[in-house]
Amino acid sequence: MNKLRLWAPETEEAFVLVEGQKIEMVKSGGSWWETPSEPAKHGTSYRFSVNGRDFFPDPASFWQPEGVHGPSCFIDHSLYNWTDSNWQCPPLGSAVIYEMHTGTFSEEGTFEGAIQHLDYLVDLGVTHLEIMPVNSFAGRHGWGYDGVALYAPHEPYGGPEGFKKLIDKCHTKGLTVILDVVYNHLGPEGNYLGKFAPYFTDKYASPWGEGINLDGPYSDEVRSFFIENALMWMRDYHIDGLRLDAVHAFVDMSATPFLEELANAVRKLQVSSGRRHFLIAESDLNDPRVIRPADIGGYGIDAQWSDDLHHSLHALVTGEKQDYYSDFGEISQVAKALKNSFVYDGIYSSFRKRKHGRTPQGLPGYSFVVSLQNHDQVGNRGFGERIGHLCDPLLQMAAAALFFTSPYIPMIFQGEEWGASSPFLYFTDFDDEELAEMVREGRKKEFASLKDREEDIPDPNAEETFNRSRLSWNERDQKTHSEMLSWYRKLINLRKENPCLLDGDRENTEVRFSEEEKWILLERDRIVTVCNFSTEERTIELEQTGSKGKILLKSHDDLRLLERSLVLPPFCTGIIRK
Amino acid sequence: MNKLRLWAPETEEAFVLVEGQKIEMVKSGGSWWETPSEPAKHGTSYRFSVNGRDFFPDPASFWQPEGVHGPSCFIDHSLYNWTDSNWQCPPLGSAVIYEMHTGTFSEEGTFEGAIQHLDYLVDLGVTHLEIMPVNSFAGRHGWGYDGVALYAPHEPYGGPEGFKKLIDKCHTKGLTVILDVVYNHLGPEGNYLGKFAPYFTDKYASPWGEGINLDGPYSDEVRSFFIENALMWMRDYHIDGLRLDAVHAFVDMSATPFLEELANAVRKLQVSSGRRHFLIAESDLNDPRVIRPADIGGYGIDAQWSDDLHHSLHALVTGEKQDYYSDFGEISQVAKALKNSFVYDGIYSSFRKRKHGRTPQGLPGYSFVVSLQNHDQVGNRGFGERIGHLCDPLLQMAAAALFFTSPYIPMIFQGEEWGASSPFLYFTDFDDEELAEMVREGRKKEFASLKDREEDIPDPNAEETFNRSRLSWNERDQKTHSEMLSWYRKLINLRKENPCLLDGDRENTEVRFSEEEKWILLERDRIVTVCNFSTEERTIELEQTGSKGKILLKSHDDLRLLERSLVLPPFCTGIIRK
Repeated sequence: MNKLRLWAPETEEAFVLVEGQKIEMVKSGGSWWETPSEPAKHGTSYRFSVNGRDFFPDPASFWQPEGVHGPSCFIDHSLYNWTDSNWQCPPLGSAVIYEMHTGTFSEEGTFEGAIQHLDYLVDLGVTHLEIMPVNSFAGRHGWGYDGVALYAPHEPYGGPEGFKKLIDKCHTKGLTVILDVVYNHLGPEGNYLGKFAPYFTDKYASPWGEGINLDGPYSDEVRSFFIENALMWMRDYHIDGLRLDAVHAFVDMSATPFLEELANAVRKLQVSSGRRHFLIAESDLNDPRVIRPADIGGYGIDAQWSDDLHHSLHALVTGEKQDYYSDFGEISQVAKALKNSFVYDGIYSSFRKRKHGRTPQGLPGYSFVVSLQNHDQVGNRGFGERIGHLCDPLLQMAAAALFFTSPYIPMIFQGEEWGASSPFLYFTDFDDEELAEMVREGRKKEFASLKDREEDIPDPNAEETFNRSRLSWNERDQKTHSEMLSWYRKLINLRKENPCLLDGDRENTEVRFSEEEKWILLERDRIVTVCNFSTEERTIELEQTGSKGKILLKSHDDLRLLERSLVLPPFCTGIIRK
Repeated sequence: MNKLRLWAPETEEAFVLVEGQKIEMVKSGGSWWETPSEPAKHGTSYRFSVNGRDFFPDPASFWQPEGVHGPSCFIDHSLYNWTDSNWQCPPLGSAVIYEMHTGTFSEEGTFEGAIQHLDYLVDLGVTHLEIMPVNSFAGRHGWGYDGVALYAPHEPYGGPEGFKKLIDKCHTKGLTVILDVVYNHLGPEGNYLGKFAPYFTDKYASPWGEGINLDGPYSDEVRSFFIENALMWMRDYHIDGLRLDAVHAFVDMSATPFLEELANAVRKLQVSSGRRHFLIAESDLNDPRVIRPADIGGYGIDAQWSDDLHHSLHALVTGEKQDYYSDFGEISQVAKALKNSFVYDGIYSSFRKRKHGRTPQGLPGYSFVVSLQNHDQVGNRGFGERIGHLCDPLLQMAAAALFFTSPYIPMIFQGEEWGASSPFLYFTDFDDEELAEMVREGRKKEFASLKDREEDIPDPNAEETFNRSRLSWNERDQKTHSEMLSWYRKLINLRKENPCLLDGDRENTEVRFSEEEKWILLERDRIVTVCNFSTEERTIELEQTGSKGKILLKSHDDLRLLERSLVLPPFCTGIIRK
């Protein structure tokens, strides 16, 4: 049963080094090799070679107990005792997602450390825990997007056993688990895949070097490598859904694109397992094809991240105009994003110097995951500033109110809910000093526009940079933090108690705004959210409110509901029921 | 009105040299420049510059009377007196296409020379004349796929005026005109586009170097450059349809792909002009998305070339197994191609080393153009052999019968219909000797597998290679040629006289075959085509034929229709009416 298997289509021989013993592998159909007998038990340590001299970790290793350069270790997944047998995750439309980075979320920086905070998340109202990549990467600390052993949970986090325990605990507490997986590239250190097979192609470039071979010779098996990975997380780790990193980096000219094939495979698994599973894509294409059903030409992915609401609100509350924020900053864009998800739906983008996107016609709101913050929007800044470090807390509260009453699926980035003081910096822990230096300099160069501060850009490879990014849980008791936390708690409650906020009905979403007076009104059925982004008090007329109107939430005591209008102090937000 | 206009988005100034006078151009909105006054009349000679020193032809030049390196010449298209005012082309489904290369079709090798043979084509039963690329390319002779002045008909063929006359004559005689256009690359000599704007990108590679910039910065205008070209041919030259060269070479990650945008633009033109226009794509993707309607996720192209029927019949009748023919050779594949168009519809291809294609579900037969020969299948061989040079004439007749009774649109390559003796070789006429040598050596290398004959590979740049490829019209009177011509004439007539052959109904297309006995039977409503590809006589049972059965066509006198069967001599074909 437990034969070790290797895919190596362009070699004449293959070997495995099992506990010190070199064994020649035999062909097992197609371009696969396997051990002649069954030497693999739970814990068997091994490496592969295609020349009998140079041995490397298994590209599909289940476990890398000594790190990405060390031997692979076989795991018998059937040995784990799951306690979540009745688990079934709720529909995505009702989700409140919480994005977590295992290394910085808890003091311990491990899966076990995260378990300690699950009750807090449940109490907060979170339904879905989204875990940033856990596949093994070089070094101890990192965001996880430079993973190289895609099947093996990172050992410093707690390895395979620890990860299973975290997921099991989540399910026991009613939390759905989403895992962030990176199929568009592998990290620069410890990537031995090319030693065995053509996983990569020079036909297309990706931002991280060679593209993944999704449509060239041998691409069927390359696709299988990633699809099997997705299925493994769902089958052997009980992961409910996957977040697919940067699908816009896939170049794929095949008649059945990789994403569609992946979505089909997940649907099949659902049928056979009886458990609900789903896929969420990160895409900056603003292309509804990603999330349209396959029978009308889509890839059939369940939902996608949609950045335009973030960008328009971020630019509005911070006044920032650098990079892609140059395309945003107007209230009308916030309004369009609330109604249409994509602001750039085929119109010209100055930043991209071309038309961008396409109208997501007919797609429900719960096809889109939106957030006021996420690891990228915070961490891809020179100093890892969160939104609360860049604007008045009242403005963060206003923006958050719009996210939580929008037709989309809201996502919180760890610590956002209490306006955490810690930044989320870009950190690495490469052993390779040359690589570390390259990343360090690249980072400085990227933020060279931050005049006078370029030299201060934290060194990604420094331990201190990682440490500074860790959440300070104790600060939650301080007044400003606890007020923010209370606001988020109320917003989440509001969402849960009003099903009309969860129906994803974009047609029934009405928005009014004044560019000049800087206010916006979002109406979804009987729930009306009104935000004043200006520094002056605003009186906003309300239609059909009358005497039945009731304030559900307000970010400032001075907010007043009159007979047919709402009076909002500067930066303030009110949510009323008509 | 007639201002000269130049698109140059990344320059601070632009100049035009008009009849010896240097004029500074002015910005005219966006990244366009124009002449300050109206110096352009019909015949005005000019060149553009972005530095005031180096002057080059207009990327969108209407006329290059002195070749691709010479000055551009303005044309007032409204001056031409068209005589085809009532012209309206018939639906594509009823087409019999004839592919013509202007330089080798007639003795003169010009548009005027082609006009002399139009009556012959009409008499043969041809409905659509497909003209290989006529845009200006370097030198006198060439296939046309190395064009560089995409808006300017090749001067040695007769230039813009001559081309208009040819199209006008075609329409007068009832012939629809299809022009082959190349938007996936420009030729290696005389390409000055990069001097003015980012038409190309290094993000993706094409088989001919840098890819076309269809989704990067400034790509809106690059797309417009090609779309305007398509519209010009239809509007100013009265071209009915375009054949888009190798659309599989476009890499385009945008939410509205270039091909879809192009198809939309052509549909709009139809509405405004009241004339029917259409697009045919050359695609080797076997991807129905190309020809599916846009509302179900397709690009909305009217039809595409489909090679699998060619490949399966070519491999069958020649026994060839090199290159992509290694994927073919079985009768079952001919059968699948006749029913399904794509043999590779998601199944594994040994040649490509991956799964290929997708089922073209629901698409009618007239979405596919098929041919037993075309310029590529003949010319991309070391010695430019036509099918008749490689197999018994009876086998060509058998294959042709299947093409003309298939549910697809049949296309003939010039001279195929009389089994022309002339090859169609790969020929060029580059001025640049280094380039010529590179092409010469590349050609030898490509056919290095042709043992002992490598040295004989004709030199593409030699005048002789071009001359040998010219059709010999007189040979049509010789017996073997006239017999083949008569067969094609009858097949075309049969197609016209039996509307059931034109309905494109693949559901109602039935195929029976025997791999072992090497025969195939194609049944479309009451018309049954039976081919014996073996060297022995075969008796094939017919269902429901009875006494009413009638032989419509037979390729050999000894073919006999019995009560419930058909007796076919070796290599023979019969077409009967049930």
